[in-house]
Amino acid sequence: MATLAWPCFQNCHRTACSRKREHGALRPFIYNDNIHRKSTMSLINHQYRLAARPVGMPKSSDWNYTEEPVGEPGEGEVLVQTLYLSLDPAMRGWMNEGKSYIPPVGIGEVMRAGGVGRVIKSNSPALAVGDHVYGTLGIQEYAIAKANALTKVDPKLAPLPVYLSTLGMPGMTAYFGFLDVGLPKAGDTVVVSGAAGAVGTVVGQIAKIKGCRVVGIAGGADKCRYIVDELGFDAAIDYKSQDVKDGLRQHCPKGIDVYFDNVGGEILEAALAQITRGARIVICGAISQYNNTAGIQGPRNYLSLLVNRARMQGMVVFDYADRYGEAACEMAGWMAAGKLKTREHIVPGLKTFPETLLMLFKGENVGKLMLKVAE
Amino acid sequence: MATLAWPCFQNCHRTACSRKREHGALRPFIYNDNIHRKSTMSLINHQYRLAARPVGMPKSSDWNYTEEPVGEPGEGEVLVQTLYLSLDPAMRGWMNEGKSYIPPVGIGEVMRAGGVGRVIKSNSPALAVGDHVYGTLGIQEYAIAKANALTKVDPKLAPLPVYLSTLGMPGMTAYFGFLDVGLPKAGDTVVVSGAAGAVGTVVGQIAKIKGCRVVGIAGGADKCRYIVDELGFDAAIDYKSQDVKDGLRQHCPKGIDVYFDNVGGEILEAALAQITRGARIVICGAISQYNNTAGIQGPRNYLSLLVNRARMQGMVVFDYADRYGEAACEMAGWMAAGKLKTREHIVPGLKTFPETLLMLFKGENVGKLMLKVAE
Repeated sequence: MATLAWPCFQNCHRTACSRKREHGALRPFIYNDNIHRKSTMSLINHQYRLAARPVGMPKSSDWNYTEEPVGEPGEGEVLVQTLYLSLDPAMRGWMNEGKSYIPPVGIGEVMRAGGVGRVIKSNSPALAVGDHVYGTLGIQEYAIAKANALTKVDPKLAPLPVYLSTLGMPGMTAYFGFLDVGLPKAGDTVVVSGAAGAVGTVVGQIAKIKGCRVVGIAGGADKCRYIVDELGFDAAIDYKSQDVKDGLRQHCPKGIDVYFDNVGGEILEAALAQITRGARIVICGAISQYNNTAGIQGPRNYLSLLVNRARMQGMVVFDYADRYGEAACEMAGWMAAGKLKTREHIVPGLKTFPETLLMLFKGENVGKLMLKVAE
Repeated sequence: MATLAWPCFQNCHRTACSRKREHGALRPFIYNDNIHRKSTMSLINHQYRLAARPVGMPKSSDWNYTEEPVGEPGEGEVLVQTLYLSLDPAMRGWMNEGKSYIPPVGIGEVMRAGGVGRVIKSNSPALAVGDHVYGTLGIQEYAIAKANALTKVDPKLAPLPVYLSTLGMPGMTAYFGFLDVGLPKAGDTVVVSGAAGAVGTVVGQIAKIKGCRVVGIAGGADKCRYIVDELGFDAAIDYKSQDVKDGLRQHCPKGIDVYFDNVGGEILEAALAQITRGARIVICGAISQYNNTAGIQGPRNYLSLLVNRARMQGMVVFDYADRYGEAACEMAGWMAAGKLKTREHIVPGLKTFPETLLMLFKGENVGKLMLKVAE
C-alpha cells in the first residue's frame, strides 16, 4: 500500500506553500455517527475479487462477488468503511500477469482500488473513529488497513470525491507529468489526449494557467464542448468524428511542443507526426491499447523523435509521493481562485463495479470516474 | 552545406581544451603537386546522380553515372578534388521524398556526401591551393564549393580518413549522442547496437573510458571478436546467431541504463524489454528499417518507458556544430593515449559507389565505410 501525504490539508509544513495561513493547523474532527457504535462483528463485507485474468475487455466472469463477516483490526490497524472508490485505467494493467511498476492483483484477491472512507474502529493512536482517510481500500465495503498506510483527509476543506480526483492520483499525475516531465514554457502549444478524463482535464487547465495554447483530443461532441466551453481549452478535436491528424494540423499550426499521452495507438502517431523540434512527449498511459488482444501497436513514426530531436518519457505518479503536498497546495490555490475546475463522475453502488469500470474503456465518463459505496 | 569547425586541429581557441599547447597555432601548409598546375578546364568530373527514389534497397537503376567538364570556381569559391567520400546510413533517408532534418536529394542532383579533398583552384583568400578540406562534396571527383562552407583539416595531425570517421560526423554523433543525450554515469550498463560500425565503435569505447560496463550488438563472429578483443567491450551479442533478448539478459543482469540505438526494429524492442528505471535510450538511427518496404515497425513495447520512467530521445549531430571542436580535442587526446581506436573500411573507386553503399545495409563493413576516390 502506498503511503500518501497531502500535508496542507492537515497542517501545511511545506515552506514552499504560500497558503499556509489559509489552510491553518490540524483541525480536530468531531464525529458522531451512532450507527458505528455497534459491534463490527455483525457487519458483512461485500467484495469484488479477481476470478480470471481478462483477455481483452474484462467481462463479468472475470470477477467473483463475495461476502464475508468484517474482521477485527489488529495492532496498529483500523477498520475503514468505504465511501468512494476510484476507478482508473491503470486497473486494467493490474489485472495482467507480469512485471510492471507494481505487482499484479492475484487471482482470488480483492481488486486493488484507491478509495476514501471513514474509520469505524481503531487500534492505532494515529487515527480515531470518525476520521476520514484515503488509501488503497480495494473494491469492497470495509477494509482493514495499517493506520500508517492511510492518509487523513478533511471533508471540510474539499468534498471527499475531490480527494480521488484533482487532489488525488489523477491530479497528482497531471501535475507532475505535465510540469516535471513535459517541461512546458509559456507560449508552447500543448496537446493532451483523453482530454475530458480525470488526468486530461487537469493537464489542460494547468497548461492554460501556465500560458500555453491547449488543444484537447476527446471522443464526442459533449466532451469537446465541455473542455472548450467550461474548462477553457483553446480547441478540441473529436476523434470519433474528425481525422485527428487534420485536426492537429488545423489547431497546431506551429506544431506541438508538449504532447501528454493518455491513449497511445493512432492518436500517439498523429501527434508524433506534428511535433516541433525539441518537443516533449509524456507517456502517462495508453488506454486505447489496454484491451487490445492483437498486441500493442508501437508508434510506427517514432523516428520523428530523431528528426525533431524530441523526447518521449514515461512517468509513474508514485515517484512524486514526497511532493504530493506541494502539488495539493498549489492546486487547492488554483481551485480556490476558480482557475482549476474539477468534475467527478460518480456512479452509485459497489455492485455496479464490473460494468462501471468498462465506462472508462468505452470513453463514457467525463471527469473522474468513481463508485459511491456508502453515504 | 553545413559549416563544420574543429578548431583544435587548426588553432585551438577553446579555453576548455587542455591540449592547446600541444596543438599549437595554425601551421602553414606547403603543397607542391605539379599535376594541379594545368588548367582545370581539361579535367572531367564523374558523378553519381539520383535517378529515381528507391523502393527498398537502392538498386543500380536508381543512379545515373554522369560526366561533365569541371567548371570554374566563382568569387569566394574553390575547386576541390575529392580524395575520400563518407558512406553513411543516413544517405538512405536523404534519397526519400518528404520532410526530415535536411531536405531530400533531388532527382537528377549529385548524391549528397561528406568528403575530404584537396583544393586545386581557389577564388577565396580563406583557402589556398593544396589545402585539405572537409565538406559536403557529393559523390563526384571534383566539387566547387564556397570556401566558408569547408573546413580546413591537417593530414599531419591525423590521417585524412580519420576526419570522416572518429574525428568526423560518426565520431561527433557518438560523442554528443552518448554523453549529452545518454547521460552515462560510471558503473552504468551501456548497450550499443551497430556496435562494430562507425558510430557504435566510438560509443562503446567512450563508455569504457567513462567507467561503464559495455555490451555491443553486432552481426557476425568477426565483428563481435573485434569489439571485445580489440576495442575492449565487456561483451558482444551476435544478432545473426544469438537471441538478442537472451543475450541481453545474460550480459546485463542488472538491466540496461543507457541504450544507444543505431538499428531500430526487433533489437530496439529487445533492449526496451531490459531497461532499468530511469534509463535513457538514444535514438541515433534505425538502419534495420531504412529499406523496409512494409513500413517502419514501431517499438511494440514502448510502454516499457512508462513502467520504467525511462526516456527515448532522438539526436541529430548538426545541432552540436558549435561544440565539434571541444569533442575533437577530447577524442584526439584519447586517441593519442591509446584509449580510443579508430578503424576505417576503405573501398577504392568512385565507380563502386552503388554496390559499396549497400555494404552498410548488409552489415558488411567494420568501422567507418568510405570510398577512396583519388590519391
